[in-house]
Amino acid sequence: MATIVFYSVNKTAHSAARRCLTSPLKGLASAGESVSRLASTHSRSVPLLPGTRWFSRGTGVRFMSHGTAGRSGNTRRGALALSGAAAVTAAAAVAGFLANTDHFQRAEMATRVPRAAKETGEEADILQRCRGFMSPPVTDISVLQGNKDEMRTKMEMLIMETQADFCKALEKVDGGTFRVDRWKRKEGGGGISCVMQDGKVFEKAGVNVSVVFGNLTEEAAKQMRSRGKVLKGKDGKLPFVAMGVSSVIHPKNPHIPTVHFNYRYFEIEEEDGTKQWWFGGGTDLTPVYIDKEDAFHFHKTLKEACDKHHPQYYPDFKKWCDRYFYVRHRGETRGIGGIFFDDLDSPNQEEVFSFVKSCARTVVPCYLPIVYKHLSDSFSDEEKDWQQVRRGRYVEFNLVYDRGVKFGLATPGSRIESILMSLPLTARWEYMHEPAKGTREAEMLDALRNPKDWV
Amino acid sequence: MATIVFYSVNKTAHSAARRCLTSPLKGLASAGESVSRLASTHSRSVPLLPGTRWFSRGTGVRFMSHGTAGRSGNTRRGALALSGAAAVTAAAAVAGFLANTDHFQRAEMATRVPRAAKETGEEADILQRCRGFMSPPVTDISVLQGNKDEMRTKMEMLIMETQADFCKALEKVDGGTFRVDRWKRKEGGGGISCVMQDGKVFEKAGVNVSVVFGNLTEEAAKQMRSRGKVLKGKDGKLPFVAMGVSSVIHPKNPHIPTVHFNYRYFEIEEEDGTKQWWFGGGTDLTPVYIDKEDAFHFHKTLKEACDKHHPQYYPDFKKWCDRYFYVRHRGETRGIGGIFFDDLDSPNQEEVFSFVKSCARTVVPCYLPIVYKHLSDSFSDEEKDWQQVRRGRYVEFNLVYDRGVKFGLATPGSRIESILMSLPLTARWEYMHEPAKGTREAEMLDALRNPKDWV
Repeated sequence: MATIVFYSVNKTAHSAARRCLTSPLKGLASAGESVSRLASTHSRSVPLLPGTRWFSRGTGVRFMSHGTAGRSGNTRRGALALSGAAAVTAAAAVAGFLANTDHFQRAEMATRVPRAAKETGEEADILQRCRGFMSPPVTDISVLQGNKDEMRTKMEMLIMETQADFCKALEKVDGGTFRVDRWKRKEGGGGISCVMQDGKVFEKAGVNVSVVFGNLTEEAAKQMRSRGKVLKGKDGKLPFVAMGVSSVIHPKNPHIPTVHFNYRYFEIEEEDGTKQWWFGGGTDLTPVYIDKEDAFHFHKTLKEACDKHHPQYYPDFKKWCDRYFYVRHRGETRGIGGIFFDDLDSPNQEEVFSFVKSCARTVVPCYLPIVYKHLSDSFSDEEKDWQQVRRGRYVEFNLVYDRGVKFGLATPGSRIESILMSLPLTARWEYMHEPAKGTREAEMLDALRNPKDWV
Repeated sequence: MATIVFYSVNKTAHSAARRCLTSPLKGLASAGESVSRLASTHSRSVPLLPGTRWFSRGTGVRFMSHGTAGRSGNTRRGALALSGAAAVTAAAAVAGFLANTDHFQRAEMATRVPRAAKETGEEADILQRCRGFMSPPVTDISVLQGNKDEMRTKMEMLIMETQADFCKALEKVDGGTFRVDRWKRKEGGGGISCVMQDGKVFEKAGVNVSVVFGNLTEEAAKQMRSRGKVLKGKDGKLPFVAMGVSSVIHPKNPHIPTVHFNYRYFEIEEEDGTKQWWFGGGTDLTPVYIDKEDAFHFHKTLKEACDKHHPQYYPDFKKWCDRYFYVRHRGETRGIGGIFFDDLDSPNQEEVFSFVKSCARTVVPCYLPIVYKHLSDSFSDEEKDWQQVRRGRYVEFNLVYDRGVKFGLATPGSRIESILMSLPLTARWEYMHEPAKGTREAEMLDALRNPKDWV
C-alpha cells in the first residue's frame, strides 16, 4: 500500500506550494519507522511533555548535550533518553498523519500551535518560550527576564527560536535527532551548535547560535562593519555584543538543494555611551539541478517577507546576494541566491528587527516544502557525482571567500568545529570538469554564470 | 600463480628500501592487464619508438593533448592513439617483468638508461633531451638551444625533466596514462599540466610545469620574495621570469601517503640591468597513518640530497617545512613534513641550481619505494574514512593558507584548473571528529600536533 501524506506550510499556497501539497512522502513514512524504533527503546525512561526537550516536567533544567551521536560522538545516558523523548513526539506526529485520512486538517493544526505561540511571543513569558529551545539560551534566563525589553534579549530569543523551529522541522523530515553542543567563549559569551550528520535525508545539517561579547579595538570594530564607519572607543576599546543564528543544510539526494541562512545583530558602545547597532543576514539556495518551480517558490517566499517591510528590500538584497556568494576564480555564483544584507540600521531598531524576524520565520516555509517535494526523487550515480562536484565549489567559496569563515578562522579562541560545520560531509574535485552542452548539469552552470530573476 | 616482481630504485639500499625490494606487487600485474587492453586497441596506429611520446619518428613534432581522458574529458582521436603508444611501452615493460625471472637485473637496466642520460644531461643536445618530455617545453626549443648556458634554460630543462621522470614513474606503477594539457598565458609564457585521475593506484595525480614572464610592479615584486627586498624598476616596472614544477599525488589506498613537491626559480631585472634571482622549493609527505619506516626513508633520502650541498640545509629546511605546512586553526601540520626553502640565492647560482637539481631528482627515490611497498596493502572502510577526513584537512590548508594557491586564485588570467589540481578527488568533513585514544588515527594526529625528527 502506498500511503500518501501531505504537508502544509502556508495556507495561501501559490503554485510551488500547491505542487508540494500533492507530493508523495514515502521518505517520511520510513523515517517514522526509524523514529518508532528509537521511541520503543527509550520511552519508559522519559515521561516528558511533548514539545519540551530539555525541561523535565516542572523540576528545573536538564538539557541534551549530545542528542545524536552519529558514529563519532560519545553518547551519554541522559542525552539518549532525551533524544528518545523528542523521538516519541516525532513518532506520535507521524503515526497521527498515517492513521488519519484528514491529514490536511491535522497538518494545519500542527502548524497553528507554534504560530499562535509566536504571535503573542513578545508578551509571553521568557521562561515559557525557552522551553521550546534546543538548549537553554546562551545568556542566563534570569538576565534575559530582567532585560526583556532590550534588543539584545529580543534578538537572542529570536535566534534561539529560529534554531529550534528549523531543527525540529528538519528532524521531522529526517527522523534523526540533532546533536546539541553548548560551548563557552573564554573572552565572553558562547554558543549552541546543533549538528545532524549522516541522517536519512540530510548528509550534514548544522544550525548554530552564538552570542559573544567583550571589547573590540577601533580597527576591529571598523572591520566588523561593512561600511567601515569610524567608531570612537574609551581608551581605544569598544564594548560589543555580536549574536546570530546561522545554518547550512546539505541533503543526500542531489535533487534536494543545499540551503544556508544567517541572521545577526551587532551592538557597539562608543566613548560617550551611544550605542551603534545594526543587523545583517540572508537566506540563499544552492541546488545541484535547476528546478524553476523550486527557485520560484524560494525567491517568492523571500520576496513576500521583504515586501511587507519595504518594496526595495527584495530587489536590492537579491542583487547583494548574487554579488556576495560569488566564486570569483570560477566566475560562478555559489547557488541561485536569495537575499543578503548587512549594516541595516534604518528606519529604526524596532522596524529592522521586525524585518529580520520576518526573514528568520521565512526559513522553514522557504525550504521545507522543497525538501518534501523531492524526498523520494530517484537519482543516478552521475547525478550524485555532479552533486559532489558542486559541493567542492561550495567548499571553495566557504574557505576562500566567506568573510565569516575567514574572520572566524583568524580569530584566536573561536570554535573551529562550529565555523566549519558548514562544510559538506563529502565533496569532490574533478580536473577540468565541464558538463556537455544541453545537459541538465550545463543548465545549472549557466544559471550560476548568469544569475537570473526567479520571480 | 603468485608472481612476485621487484622494483629497484637505489642500489645503496637502506632498511626501508630493502623491505620495499621484497614487497609483492600484485597491483602492478593487474595494472598491466588494463594497459594491454588499451595497447591492443590502438597499437596498429602508432609506430612510435618506445620512450618517445610526442615526437613521431624523425618527422617533426606531435604531442599528446589529452592523453588520459578519464570519464570527464573529451578524447580526440590523435590523443587516444598516442595514449595507446605510451601504453604499449608501459605494457611491454610490465610484460617483460612478468615473463622474466631475473627481474632484479631488468629493473636495474630500466633505471640505468635514464640515469646515464641524466649524468651527461647538461652536455647533451637540448633537442635530444626534449624527446623524453611529456610535451615540448613551454619555451621554443630553438630559443632554448640559443640560450643553453642561461639559468632560465637550465631550469626549464630541469623542471620538464622532473615532470617527465615523475609522470613516467607514476604511470608505470598505476598502469594509467597522464592527460597532458598545454596552456598559454596571455601576458607571457604558459604551462604544461599533467593529470591522471581515478587511476588504479592514484585517485588524483597532478604534475604541473609553468614558465611565465612579463612585467611586475615594484609592490608585486616585493611580495614575490619572502624576504621582501626592495627592488627598483624602470618606470616602476620590473621584467621577470618565474618557472617551476609542482605536484600533488593523492593515492587511493590509505596506506600510501600523499606527496607534494615544488621547485621554482625567479629572475627579476632591475632598472640598472642587474638580475635578482632566487630558487625555492621543497618535498613533503602527508600520510594517513604513521609508518616510521616510510618516514625514515623519506626524510633520510631528502637529508642525503641536502647533505651533499650543506650540512645545515636539511635541519633548517626540515624546520621551515613544519612551520610552513601548518593548519593554524587546527593546530596541526599538514603532514609529516620533509624540506621547504625559499629565497635561496647563495653561495652562487650554479651551486644553488645544483642543490635544487639534487632535490628534484630525489622526488622519485623519495616516494616511489613507499608506493610500491604499500601497493597491495588491504584496508578497511574505517581506514578509507580516516583518509577522507585527512583529505579534508589537506583542502583546508591549500585553500586557506597556501601562498601559491592564494596568489594564483587572486591573479587575473591564472589557470585555475592547474592551481586546484592539488585538491583531492574526494574529501570528507565530519563534525567533531576526534580519534579514540590509543588508535592508529590518534597516533597520526599526535605526530601532526607534535612534529617529530624522523632521521
